[in-house]
Amino acid sequence: MSSLPADAELRAAAIVRHMLAHDVFSRWMGVEILHVEPARVTLRMAVRQDMTNGFGVCHGGVTFAFADSALAFASNTGGKVTVSIENSMTYPAAVRVGDLLLAEAEREASSQRLAYYRVRVTRGDGAVVALFRGTVFQTDREHDVGRDGSE
Amino acid sequence: MSSLPADAELRAAAIVRHMLAHDVFSRWMGVEILHVEPARVTLRMAVRQDMTNGFGVCHGGVTFAFADSALAFASNTGGKVTVSIENSMTYPAAVRVGDLLLAEAEREASSQRLAYYRVRVTRGDGAVVALFRGTVFQTDREHDVGRDGSE
Amino acid sequence: MSSLPADAELRAAAIVRHMLAHDVFSRWMGVEILHVEPARVTLRMAVRQDMTNGFGVCHGGVTFAFADSALAFASNTGGKVTVSIENSMTYPAAVRVGDLLLAEAEREASSQRLAYYRVRVTRGDGAVVALFRGTVFQTDREHDVGRDGSE
Amino acid sequence: MSSLPADAELRAAAIVRHMLAHDVFSRWMGVEILHVEPARVTLRMAVRQDMTNGFGVCHGGVTFAFADSALAFASNTGGKVTVSIENSMTYPAAVRVGDLLLAEAEREASSQRLAYYRVRVTRGDGAVVALFRGTVFQTDREHDVGRDGSE
Repeated sequence: MSSLPADAELRAAAIVRHMLAHDVFSRWMGVEILHVEPARVTLRMAVRQDMTNGFGVCHGGVTFAFADSALAFASNTGGKVTVSIENSMTYPAAVRVGDLLLAEAEREASSQRLAYYRVRVTRGDGAVVALFRGTVFQTDREHDVGRDGSE
Repeated sequence: MSSLPADAELRAAAIVRHMLAHDVFSRWMGVEILHVEPARVTLRMAVRQDMTNGFGVCHGGVTFAFADSALAFASNTGGKVTVSIENSMTYPAAVRVGDLLLAEAEREASSQRLAYYRVRVTRGDGAVVALFRGTVFQTDREHDVGRDGSE
Repeated sequence: MSSLPADAELRAAAIVRHMLAHDVFSRWMGVEILHVEPARVTLRMAVRQDMTNGFGVCHGGVTFAFADSALAFASNTGGKVTVSIENSMTYPAAVRVGDLLLAEAEREASSQRLAYYRVRVTRGDGAVVALFRGTVFQTDREHDVGRDGSE
Repeated sequence: MSSLPADAELRAAAIVRHMLAHDVFSRWMGVEILHVEPARVTLRMAVRQDMTNGFGVCHGGVTFAFADSALAFASNTGGKVTVSIENSMTYPAAVRVGDLLLAEAEREASSQRLAYYRVRVTRGDGAVVALFRGTVFQTDREHDVGRDGSE
């Protein structure tokens, strides 16, 4: 017999794997899942030439998308489908081709149907390259996946 | 003899064409330039299957990247290289495969080295799908392009 | 017989007057109502010495509160109680003691239960001193005031 | 002989005390300094009746101003005058008359002239009532105060 906490961990992981498997753009970015627990996710990706903008650095939209995927995955781990209401992002340092990025999403607070997340994106050298914040709304719809361990 | 305002318009257009030509990710998105004038740009793109997320709608990061390109283009039209400091975005309506999106960027205010832009992203049916805001910092570096009409 | 649009205008004005009459902090700021229509409000206030911060200019929180009152008033004009979810603000220019400020709130978009407003705060000389944005959630609760023209 | 870190701590505390002493609006709010170290400040205040809005809860602008003071104090501890560029805030829980609030400001990242702070505002029961984020620009101007321990 498994305990409830372990079930919650397993279901969170199953939901995130399922979401990534169906997330065509995150797969285009080469997103990998490093860690999942309820309300917390760590992702990794490598920056490629086809992600750059007119200044030859990583397009801000790609860095945003990477953080946004971390938010989406982390905020859906509870089993209910959530949708994004608002996001903001700052850019403390540049991102270049070849950089290996980590995105760590965690919940800062929640209230009834809303939850508030922060995502820190860091480079291989540890520098923070993006501070992302997102507010999400939790719908009534359950994720089908992982309720019995299946995907 | 051309008047100065016409020169400013021509240079703005030359800078934006040059930026898009070198912006690999914006070209991946299929971004087209519809209109350019100083501090104001309108872009168009069509949403494809490879831009979707795990819910089958356009990944928020792609919509953000489209708005962000409009911001980058509009805020560089003055001839100096600008860099993004902070962005925020809301999502009033969903974006689906096949939607034809417009992004209209305009300057709301400016102060010494900072400028403040808003970008509205709309669908073909006129619905607002994203309200994006960006603060940019104007560097001292001049764009090489378009100073003599050349690119 | 009054037409429906005129009723909507009258009720919007009654709600805003009622809200200001009960809003102790807005009255402390000396907020005056210049114009009300559904989803749009213009307010005025004068900056006093007791609103300044350690640098001798108007405390950013007071400018924010002024814009936030404009958002609250504008977003409640429809007759349902709304609550703020998220706000952001930039500061293109300084605000000094004696400045007469205008706050103009307008709805940029809406979707089911959410609405998205912008508020521009300007000085007497027309300079934009704050660009404020707010996302609000519309509850099911009706304002009692003004349904029959009474307050 | 004092070590340099201790000097930095002392100067940070002197700057914050000086700023609060001249910050008329923060004194109106009854702000108290609980803790100061470089790039980190904790403040306290009690919510009064004259801080409420039309719904009888604490005006969002007052909560914002409290967080904004924490940001201003924390970001000036390094000895250079800093100014706010952009702020955003969410409201996970309501604030009522009599609530004792804590604001904890800390730096999340920095880059050349910009620094990025988060401020968490909590109630006496530990609930997060506001998540505030601020981007500041560091000027070349030195604070006069505290360079020799004097104020």
